[in-house]
Amino acid sequence: MAPLTGAEVAKHNRPDDCWVIVHGKAYDVTEFLPEHPGGAKIILKYAGKDATEEFDPIHPPDTLEKYLPKSKHMGPVDMSTVTKETVEVSAEEKERQKRIQEMPLLEQCYNLHDFEAVAKRVMKKTAWGYYSSAADDEITLRENHTAFQRIWFRPRILINVEKVDFSTTMLGTPVSIPFYVTATALGKLGHPEGEVVLTKAAHKHNVIQMIPTLASCSFDEIMDAAGPGQVQWFQLYVNKDREITKRIVQHAEARGCKGLFITVDAPQLGRREKDMRMKFTEEGSNVQKGQATDTSQGAARAISSFIDPSLSWADIPWFQSITKMPIVLKGVQRVEDVLKAIEYGVHGVVLSNHGGRQLDFSRSAIEVLAETMPILRERGLENKIEIYIDGGVRRATDILKALCLGARGVGIGRPFLYAMSSYGLAGVDRAMQLLKDEMEMNMRLIGANSIADLNPSMVDIRGLFSHSSPPVDNLFNSAYDPLVNPSQRTINVEKAKL
Amino acid sequence: MAPLTGAEVAKHNRPDDCWVIVHGKAYDVTEFLPEHPGGAKIILKYAGKDATEEFDPIHPPDTLEKYLPKSKHMGPVDMSTVTKETVEVSAEEKERQKRIQEMPLLEQCYNLHDFEAVAKRVMKKTAWGYYSSAADDEITLRENHTAFQRIWFRPRILINVEKVDFSTTMLGTPVSIPFYVTATALGKLGHPEGEVVLTKAAHKHNVIQMIPTLASCSFDEIMDAAGPGQVQWFQLYVNKDREITKRIVQHAEARGCKGLFITVDAPQLGRREKDMRMKFTEEGSNVQKGQATDTSQGAARAISSFIDPSLSWADIPWFQSITKMPIVLKGVQRVEDVLKAIEYGVHGVVLSNHGGRQLDFSRSAIEVLAETMPILRERGLENKIEIYIDGGVRRATDILKALCLGARGVGIGRPFLYAMSSYGLAGVDRAMQLLKDEMEMNMRLIGANSIADLNPSMVDIRGLFSHSSPPVDNLFNSAYDPLVNPSQRTINVEKAKL
Amino acid sequence: MAPLTGAEVAKHNRPDDCWVIVHGKAYDVTEFLPEHPGGAKIILKYAGKDATEEFDPIHPPDTLEKYLPKSKHMGPVDMSTVTKETVEVSAEEKERQKRIQEMPLLEQCYNLHDFEAVAKRVMKKTAWGYYSSAADDEITLRENHTAFQRIWFRPRILINVEKVDFSTTMLGTPVSIPFYVTATALGKLGHPEGEVVLTKAAHKHNVIQMIPTLASCSFDEIMDAAGPGQVQWFQLYVNKDREITKRIVQHAEARGCKGLFITVDAPQLGRREKDMRMKFTEEGSNVQKGQATDTSQGAARAISSFIDPSLSWADIPWFQSITKMPIVLKGVQRVEDVLKAIEYGVHGVVLSNHGGRQLDFSRSAIEVLAETMPILRERGLENKIEIYIDGGVRRATDILKALCLGARGVGIGRPFLYAMSSYGLAGVDRAMQLLKDEMEMNMRLIGANSIADLNPSMVDIRGLFSHSSPPVDNLFNSAYDPLVNPSQRTINVEKAKL
Amino acid sequence: MAPLTGAEVAKHNRPDDCWVIVHGKAYDVTEFLPEHPGGAKIILKYAGKDATEEFDPIHPPDTLEKYLPKSKHMGPVDMSTVTKETVEVSAEEKERQKRIQEMPLLEQCYNLHDFEAVAKRVMKKTAWGYYSSAADDEITLRENHTAFQRIWFRPRILINVEKVDFSTTMLGTPVSIPFYVTATALGKLGHPEGEVVLTKAAHKHNVIQMIPTLASCSFDEIMDAAGPGQVQWFQLYVNKDREITKRIVQHAEARGCKGLFITVDAPQLGRREKDMRMKFTEEGSNVQKGQATDTSQGAARAISSFIDPSLSWADIPWFQSITKMPIVLKGVQRVEDVLKAIEYGVHGVVLSNHGGRQLDFSRSAIEVLAETMPILRERGLENKIEIYIDGGVRRATDILKALCLGARGVGIGRPFLYAMSSYGLAGVDRAMQLLKDEMEMNMRLIGANSIADLNPSMVDIRGLFSHSSPPVDNLFNSAYDPLVNPSQRTINVEKAKL
Repeated sequence: MAPLTGAEVAKHNRPDDCWVIVHGKAYDVTEFLPEHPGGAKIILKYAGKDATEEFDPIHPPDTLEKYLPKSKHMGPVDMSTVTKETVEVSAEEKERQKRIQEMPLLEQCYNLHDFEAVAKRVMKKTAWGYYSSAADDEITLRENHTAFQRIWFRPRILINVEKVDFSTTMLGTPVSIPFYVTATALGKLGHPEGEVVLTKAAHKHNVIQMIPTLASCSFDEIMDAAGPGQVQWFQLYVNKDREITKRIVQHAEARGCKGLFITVDAPQLGRREKDMRMKFTEEGSNVQKGQATDTSQGAARAISSFIDPSLSWADIPWFQSITKMPIVLKGVQRVEDVLKAIEYGVHGVVLSNHGGRQLDFSRSAIEVLAETMPILRERGLENKIEIYIDGGVRRATDILKALCLGARGVGIGRPFLYAMSSYGLAGVDRAMQLLKDEMEMNMRLIGANSIADLNPSMVDIRGLFSHSSPPVDNLFNSAYDPLVNPSQRTINVEKAKL
Repeated sequence: MAPLTGAEVAKHNRPDDCWVIVHGKAYDVTEFLPEHPGGAKIILKYAGKDATEEFDPIHPPDTLEKYLPKSKHMGPVDMSTVTKETVEVSAEEKERQKRIQEMPLLEQCYNLHDFEAVAKRVMKKTAWGYYSSAADDEITLRENHTAFQRIWFRPRILINVEKVDFSTTMLGTPVSIPFYVTATALGKLGHPEGEVVLTKAAHKHNVIQMIPTLASCSFDEIMDAAGPGQVQWFQLYVNKDREITKRIVQHAEARGCKGLFITVDAPQLGRREKDMRMKFTEEGSNVQKGQATDTSQGAARAISSFIDPSLSWADIPWFQSITKMPIVLKGVQRVEDVLKAIEYGVHGVVLSNHGGRQLDFSRSAIEVLAETMPILRERGLENKIEIYIDGGVRRATDILKALCLGARGVGIGRPFLYAMSSYGLAGVDRAMQLLKDEMEMNMRLIGANSIADLNPSMVDIRGLFSHSSPPVDNLFNSAYDPLVNPSQRTINVEKAKL
Repeated sequence: MAPLTGAEVAKHNRPDDCWVIVHGKAYDVTEFLPEHPGGAKIILKYAGKDATEEFDPIHPPDTLEKYLPKSKHMGPVDMSTVTKETVEVSAEEKERQKRIQEMPLLEQCYNLHDFEAVAKRVMKKTAWGYYSSAADDEITLRENHTAFQRIWFRPRILINVEKVDFSTTMLGTPVSIPFYVTATALGKLGHPEGEVVLTKAAHKHNVIQMIPTLASCSFDEIMDAAGPGQVQWFQLYVNKDREITKRIVQHAEARGCKGLFITVDAPQLGRREKDMRMKFTEEGSNVQKGQATDTSQGAARAISSFIDPSLSWADIPWFQSITKMPIVLKGVQRVEDVLKAIEYGVHGVVLSNHGGRQLDFSRSAIEVLAETMPILRERGLENKIEIYIDGGVRRATDILKALCLGARGVGIGRPFLYAMSSYGLAGVDRAMQLLKDEMEMNMRLIGANSIADLNPSMVDIRGLFSHSSPPVDNLFNSAYDPLVNPSQRTINVEKAKL
Repeated sequence: MAPLTGAEVAKHNRPDDCWVIVHGKAYDVTEFLPEHPGGAKIILKYAGKDATEEFDPIHPPDTLEKYLPKSKHMGPVDMSTVTKETVEVSAEEKERQKRIQEMPLLEQCYNLHDFEAVAKRVMKKTAWGYYSSAADDEITLRENHTAFQRIWFRPRILINVEKVDFSTTMLGTPVSIPFYVTATALGKLGHPEGEVVLTKAAHKHNVIQMIPTLASCSFDEIMDAAGPGQVQWFQLYVNKDREITKRIVQHAEARGCKGLFITVDAPQLGRREKDMRMKFTEEGSNVQKGQATDTSQGAARAISSFIDPSLSWADIPWFQSITKMPIVLKGVQRVEDVLKAIEYGVHGVVLSNHGGRQLDFSRSAIEVLAETMPILRERGLENKIEIYIDGGVRRATDILKALCLGARGVGIGRPFLYAMSSYGLAGVDRAMQLLKDEMEMNMRLIGANSIADLNPSMVDIRGLFSHSSPPVDNLFNSAYDPLVNPSQRTINVEKAKL
């Protein structure tokens, strides 16, 4: 069959007859429109046209193959016949391009905060919105970091720290430093190569990468990118269809994943207003059409409609029956559920609030850790389970605080995304190296030769549980109209002189 | 009798002979001038003229019929003969009209804060001043919200939350979500239709509206606007004349109100400086006339002179004798008075500080709730009374916190006024829908299937009672002259070179 | 003897031969120069000239008569022969005159903060510097106010508050409201009439005025300004020469003062950098002359060199022997010294840190009060002494908090100075009236009919003793150089394109 | 041998043949390049040229004599033949020169903060970067000061304080006031004469100077600058080569040093990003060359490579065997190590976190002091050791707080560097005099006649251990993208009107 021409495809540009081109092939998505998790609107924008650029960061490459019936695959398109849209570069985009040109040199980034500051300047607004946003007023997002700032060190002195060794093991795997790259969705929003950039950096630095269910790359692409002997974990959003879940889990195990991290804090994916606000365009807005509420709620909601809100403790034994991978519950948020996890015999928990993206005012993982460990020790359970935390880690001192309090390791997500989005692989590499440099220094300064030396006496957590100065509520504050003293009067000077 | 002409009315334009036109009829208000709760000044501004526009938002339509003797009703006016004042649109008003034109689309409001931010831009300064102002330094106003921010969640995980149900009952009435529209005065300041807008939204969302004594619409108008089966409560300011009070209460009951909320925190209506400052005009200012203190103190004082400061516990049995409606005390502010309310056998209390509009530095309702419930539980009294709170609620998480701590429901006032003032009924509708969306999400994320699942173990209130960082005192801060390091000197460069 | 001519006086214009004219009389101050508490420099500026304008606010009118030997009184001057200095009005002064012209109307001041904000705009820089400054980093100055903000109310409801009476007695004198005008120095810096303005306002409002030792008016002028029956107290800085002290005290008693307030927190008058900085002029600066440290340290040091740093508990019986006036120690700062004061049998103490002008980081009086009263009650001493506090009072709620905690009354100083400096007597009158209006309102809202009803259960002081967020250290903060993320690079765009 | 000519030296301007001129002599540093602690890059910038100006502040004058083999000393250079580099004055430098010209007069500096504010304006960026920077987010740097602000006074009154005496002894030496000049590196960055400026000021004020290992002046120069009877201490970074250490220590003792302060908080010198960032230049940046991480990390790392990270408690007896000087451990950070120091029989400890330059989130010395003394008193050990603190001291009140809590004295470092850098010796002199003036005043105001009178009852430390409001994390905050309310829309007004 001869390839389709652009003109032929362009005829199918209506809600009741809608084709799109992706990677040089045409697809009939008319019937799929109402089911599209991201809403019909975004597809209709490309009706009869090439949607590849918009499609790519949000969907793994095998998406259409997997989910669209073969009958809707309309065949290859002669791309030379497709009218290239001459997109006018917006003033906003021009500004961004200028900012990219003037980006600081990589070596001017001295810490993980710096990558975030650069990413804020150079990322596309919508991508930045998806990565950086969090639930409601983003109080928990910031509390995740500021909670660390309420923990202070009690360093030991006069310890021979010529040699310090901060390697450890996680679920049995030796790693060079006690952090892992935690799962984050939609890597291609930040970098055209997506999650495999993180894979390569993790390999270089001998740390574990957790592969996200909602990656832009396909699972196999990420596995394939691993270096020899590199260990990866798999993060799982449990599908409403358990057969699909089973297939996915067993495929991960077969491919060599060494840990199954089941997300338990996201029966429904969070509502992130910064994401929604940045994605909002008046174009096609439904105000004139009298519709009630806009249903397009940012990337997060679009990609998560398959997640099963009925997942419960009762499902755990089933998971234990379908895989031999160690099982870790990701998103535990109070000590009662850590105890329950031990009862259920899972290998670990990640104390986490999903980077502040789910329930606002969920406490920081580091606070939950400090609540948990004394109770576990009291009951002799501290070695029955591996406890990880994630959220807000920016400095090696943060890692040290977590380890002093009893964590086995910490997950780091956004900072590596920001480094990747700004500087690609070199950025992630430097971010990891900076953490290692800080770690070596701070192990010496706290007086510890190895991870085993870290203990609760090295931290002062008296201020940790205080919540007297929570992160600022920006929306509340900007809506408030502050009182003012009486203003000066306008005097007509000429008149006043009379 | 032939209608009066504008010219005839215009003759009565002096303090000792003052007529005004309202809705096409002339009234002789000369004798009433000194008694006008809003002061004589504001009436004299319209002496001999049409005062309808100024009159409307402050007075229910039946006011003149009810309170001005028939002899002072001078009869209809031929409005075609009344000189239309060509009010010059002020620069300030032009700016406001521009802001209205550029208002964000309704769908760009993602939370209740947003409506407030928009209302601040588009409302008339005096209306904004009346709605948004609070007592003294507005510390309690802001504490009402920030107290919620000192409460954190301890969510449960791995609960099957496919179905979540957050309906409940209030004083026996089933409602779809545990909030009600609390009573707020002078609805027409924000929207020409006034409180009936809230009535319609409440009906659509199946929540209860509490009808204010000081509504711009008449009580009956608001009742008449209710949909089939819609439940309304009545908020009562007790009149010095108890016969009037009795008539009002019994009329409310007869019309079908299902709850009587007696305001107990306002023996005198608060002094709100933002309101006073925004209302101030130099015109007619009494400085030149040597008068001492200006007595016009904003809308609040003007409308409330009838309120009885002698109301006391001793009156409660009388109320119980004149109505079968459940009686709820609105404005309780410490546990001792909750216990007393139980003794007196009332059905409920609203822990409230009147939106911060009465006594500044009264504590937030949520803090009083957290003080109250443990004592009630200790004495086995927690089911003897329904406890509501109001003040500062902006998010479904705020509602959840209150319910975890033992409240039956929360009242929300200003946010709906702001939504109404900005976008009318559609705005209130969206505000309520947003709360429902948040509620569904957050019930799932906290791990609760129903209201009954919510309990104190789901919140961490260790920081709640801390008052180490109270809301900022803006007036004090702006009056303070901060210390500065020594400034550079001005050098005469030419001279310095010599 | 014929009056001196300006020309004759003008000859004596050197350090070793220095005359000045004050109120039309010439004085030879050559020998006095080194002893002048304010330094020789300021006198030399007027050597041979008329110094009246500079002299007046700092010295009571009888100063020269009292302290300069008759032999140095050179006799009257024919002022018509004295060259009028044509002082060029500085740009700064022109700006100030403009601000005075545009001052808000008095009725636009709604609270005590407002007067301070206006005074900051319209007062002369040096006068503002003297009144507003405090010790070191002015932490205590601000803590005095912010400590009140850590106290919250627990108001009672359903109390018949139709009538509220907030009159009380102080040292036996009935007053209309529980505040008094506390002693503040140099009233003529703010208003040409000086302290008598406060006398008149105090009389009108039936409150007590405490007369300062360091008044601009003479003691007798202030006594003479009192209305019939008006009660005044006397504040005493104890002179190194006890005979002088005795004469002063007995004169005060003879003139009818009803209380002797001995200042005990000022063995040396504080160093106030804002005052020093505002007073600094390069003119005559000693840098070129190689002198070490500038000894002119603002008005405070200049006027206080007579104060006796050896004053001690051992002196108290002597005071009790020379006067029958009730004796009150002003400036007590910890409970131990309150107990000692009771032992010594004085009638009262003022818990005070001298408006933050003496020892920075002295605690607020309201905190010391809250520390003191429980211990007094424990020992049954709470009625053995009257306890006053001063510092930071701006609202009637502040007064109520102090009274709930056990104070008999509060002193208010600066706010009345600011009102006087901005609006004269009318300003002080309005300031007092505003406090009365607030008091009446807030007595009702807290549920108290009289001062006797106020008690500790009406306040929540759990946050009071917290010092986790002290007032901002402005000098430290402005000296600190905050970390920044890497800045963008400057790209030569032309070059970059190549 | 005839002196070398500039032309001859200039030939050796390559990495493989590199000479530099310092103080008129040529040196062959080719082989030394890879070993240079500050990196080869900075030397190569001066290959074949005169490097004196860059060399001086970083290296004591005897450095080349001591460390470069004689064979590399190429002999004197005829400086008249050396081409003077005409360095173009940068715009930044011109701005700085202007700021220097407009500097406030010395007498306008009223406190230690002021010197810092002036120094920030007038110092070279790199020098400022080295002095002012601290570890990571500079949280501890600021906590050092703000911790003092959580301590309040409980002053005594009515004490005869005519005479106050704040002299004391430190390690047996009488001093006029309980502070000493602590060791700080690289004095010539701030002033061409370097540390001897501090020596002279210390002599004038009769306080002890601690001589730093990393001084710009040589040790002997600093000793030689001492006045008759002046006491100096020696701060020691322990060298990996213990023979060198022994030689240094015994030389110090022989020259008369009265105390050996062994730094124990710096097994590796801290990473200070402000220093790194200010030192960064794109010139020669390795980005184009594909190198990984920049190894030039500011002055701190450059000068400290000799420090021995293996130093441990086991070395203490050896130190005790090689010197009779009292030994003090500088940098103790928790009570456990104070107890250990007592066991080991050292004479003192300095509670210190190295001015916040080492481990960020190490607690302030004043907090560690408050933790330590009660435990020492409980065990009867409070007189077994002298306890000093340093970090954050800016006011005499800070000194008083430390002494009330049990410190023997406090070290002050940066403030004197800033005074020296801004105003030279006169600046340091004034800084010390200001502290003495404050001390005299505040001894009086706290009611203490002598150091012995100071005790824990004079301070209120209830807030000290709170860490609920840590210093602001500027990098985190500036990277965060705050939520905003919906923005106004841009309306095409013409269109809107249609």
